[in-house]
Amino acid sequence: MELTRELANKVVESKWADIPSSVRNEARRSFFNWLGCTIGGTRHEASETALALACAFTGPRQATAIGTSHRLDIFHAAWVNGISSHVFDFDDTHLRTVIHPSPPIAPAILALGEYRPVSGADFIHAFALGIEVACRIGNAVCPAHYNIGWHSTSTAGVFGAAVAVGKLLGLDQQQMAYALGLAGTQASGLRENLNTMGKFLHPGHAARDGMTAAFLAQRNFTASERILEAPRGFANVLSQERNLDEILDGWGSRFEVLVNTYKPYPCGVVLHPIIDACLHFAREEGIAAADVESVRLQVNFLVQEVTGKRHPQVGVDGKFSVSHCVAVSFIDRRVEEDQFTDGRVLDPQVVALSDKVVVAVDPGIAADEVRMELVLRDGRRLTRHVEHALGSLKQPLTDAQLEEKFRRLCADILKPQQIDRLVEYCTTIVELPDVERIARTAAVS
Amino acid sequence: MELTRELANKVVESKWADIPSSVRNEARRSFFNWLGCTIGGTRHEASETALALACAFTGPRQATAIGTSHRLDIFHAAWVNGISSHVFDFDDTHLRTVIHPSPPIAPAILALGEYRPVSGADFIHAFALGIEVACRIGNAVCPAHYNIGWHSTSTAGVFGAAVAVGKLLGLDQQQMAYALGLAGTQASGLRENLNTMGKFLHPGHAARDGMTAAFLAQRNFTASERILEAPRGFANVLSQERNLDEILDGWGSRFEVLVNTYKPYPCGVVLHPIIDACLHFAREEGIAAADVESVRLQVNFLVQEVTGKRHPQVGVDGKFSVSHCVAVSFIDRRVEEDQFTDGRVLDPQVVALSDKVVVAVDPGIAADEVRMELVLRDGRRLTRHVEHALGSLKQPLTDAQLEEKFRRLCADILKPQQIDRLVEYCTTIVELPDVERIARTAAVS
Repeated sequence: MELTRELANKVVESKWADIPSSVRNEARRSFFNWLGCTIGGTRHEASETALALACAFTGPRQATAIGTSHRLDIFHAAWVNGISSHVFDFDDTHLRTVIHPSPPIAPAILALGEYRPVSGADFIHAFALGIEVACRIGNAVCPAHYNIGWHSTSTAGVFGAAVAVGKLLGLDQQQMAYALGLAGTQASGLRENLNTMGKFLHPGHAARDGMTAAFLAQRNFTASERILEAPRGFANVLSQERNLDEILDGWGSRFEVLVNTYKPYPCGVVLHPIIDACLHFAREEGIAAADVESVRLQVNFLVQEVTGKRHPQVGVDGKFSVSHCVAVSFIDRRVEEDQFTDGRVLDPQVVALSDKVVVAVDPGIAADEVRMELVLRDGRRLTRHVEHALGSLKQPLTDAQLEEKFRRLCADILKPQQIDRLVEYCTTIVELPDVERIARTAAVS
Repeated sequence: MELTRELANKVVESKWADIPSSVRNEARRSFFNWLGCTIGGTRHEASETALALACAFTGPRQATAIGTSHRLDIFHAAWVNGISSHVFDFDDTHLRTVIHPSPPIAPAILALGEYRPVSGADFIHAFALGIEVACRIGNAVCPAHYNIGWHSTSTAGVFGAAVAVGKLLGLDQQQMAYALGLAGTQASGLRENLNTMGKFLHPGHAARDGMTAAFLAQRNFTASERILEAPRGFANVLSQERNLDEILDGWGSRFEVLVNTYKPYPCGVVLHPIIDACLHFAREEGIAAADVESVRLQVNFLVQEVTGKRHPQVGVDGKFSVSHCVAVSFIDRRVEEDQFTDGRVLDPQVVALSDKVVVAVDPGIAADEVRMELVLRDGRRLTRHVEHALGSLKQPLTDAQLEEKFRRLCADILKPQQIDRLVEYCTTIVELPDVERIARTAAVS
């Protein structure tokens, strides 16, 4: 059987009992992390702009623009919530492909859960399948696909959204193959936009288009049934290298959500071990910014390539500036959204400390690792080796840390009792009779 | 100045007086052709399916789903009308790039013309600019871009829709650059879907997304200002070969709409010279299907490559079957939508005559040319050389032929007085105070 057909069949045939409890739990954690990022992300100019446009043209008020007081039709809700979830660069990361799996998928099925009854178990089942499909398609074409310039979060994510929505709509095998064909023909998103709001559009776009693909397929709107493997299909056209075996090998025994990760800091993931080291010195050893003579880092090459910008001029660029992150770690002793404002990246004290950061690439250093030497004004030299950053696969955020992150992101937006209830819902989601209550509770009244 | 910025500036600075009358007239003809195709195309399963989905989720009833009794918000109207305009493979063709220029652009600005006042002159101005931008971007990346598998109609068309809508919204230079950046990051559409309804989705998708790009840009939603030329921009990522000079060379003196063409028959354009020759024999020389012993064709290689399918099983495949088109030309003595039903491609008489067609590729034959030898049962041999097919650049449809095509497409859908009025509006469009009246008149009451 052909690949796309076989993948469609696997999704259609998948049963809740086929999903191991570890997978269910990790999908639950992914959703919890996504929900907090999305609620927090509503207070960003890009989210507000997208919401205003959606409100002007929305259809029936079927679903919640979460973290706001607005209701939208399910397609606009998926679009807006997809955008909000990505604005802080705080969402989940499938490290192998650099895909952020939840932002294109969760908004689509959460909106659907306000349109028709979806139990918590069905939701987590569809969500896990969506992540599985998106990340496996990503595995098949990355890194070549990403390297040439595709933002794999949306190009692979649109397939994930389509199958997750399609699973909840109860598509048959033929329709599921169409849904994949219609998803692939809408795959888009260029990394050229990564330092702009254009980037945030990508998961919203993928969530809405994946949903469109599934709804059209449900109505037997036809499409290629070979979108993944055909000579003019997704893998050949959007990547110069590919390994299509990745898409089905070990299906049902190996699960990609188990290698999903969650960030403790809202900035480039390769900076996380460095921030860990800096916060250790600042908080645990009481080193003040004024004590620092220089900060010498031995880093993975990605730190230099992705975050080498020395003097960012706008807040968002601080998220991909190693020197800025070091500086605010010492000065503010925390790395949250407030550390990436325009004012913070231009602050003279921050800029001065940034200039004391020296970065050396070391081929022996992994992406979640750093060796740091701190030279103090009094001549002391302190060293620290972070082997695995907080939030990495080897040092994942605990449930308590995820909850703390969630509460921090929601604190200024929802009432305490709403936050408590959402924590409870996200903890017990697989037992909930419906997920509508989650979206409703995440609305600003 | 960088390319994308300069293109944005050209569009913003363009004045109606800069558009020569020949260009205005050809843009008018393109729109007239598009309008007929779209009205006729509403009676297709794909259009009906898309419309049903749009009706279920539409926002404010701002714009007409033309050829129907439904009103939709402007984004859904652009989407549905974009799909309807493409379902018959009867729309316009920019032969160099194989882009169908109008379907992604006209639906977006016609919908906009029902949302805010747009004069006929402003409409044709924006439309000509949209076609110019889409086809020039196509010229820059085709044929490599098309050959690898991109459906250039939508991938280039989304830029055309964005600038046309952006022009009518009065975007400034910065915003127009953002609109291009947001359009490019939504560019999609795979040729793998060409024999499915997925193909028809492409121009609707491009129309809606180009409009989204312009509306977001108007609200200063930021994007890369180098989407065309950047290493990870559109031209590099979506094509293995490119010539970016095509985008601005001769701007304002050379116009791509002047090389736009319109089809007399709703099928693959490379079949048109062959149909011309067959209809000549059938109609002018009175040759009956029963007289035909064999039909020998010397053709351009594209005929074999694109339309070589011998025994299509579904109607739509007949549009890309040379043998089917020869057979129905003799049997039905016309080539309209009725010749491409499932029943027609499976008709035993059609199949029998199809088997008498012999195709030989001749490297000396152009794409709009054919040499035909007709062998009759009585032993006679008739030959015909069509140098330039009807509808080709050298033998364009006359205004009268365009009108006949328009009237035929609308005949079963609109009332005679509606059709008369639309013909009048499309003839005098540059003098109309608004284009809203066109859309309103194209509604089924």
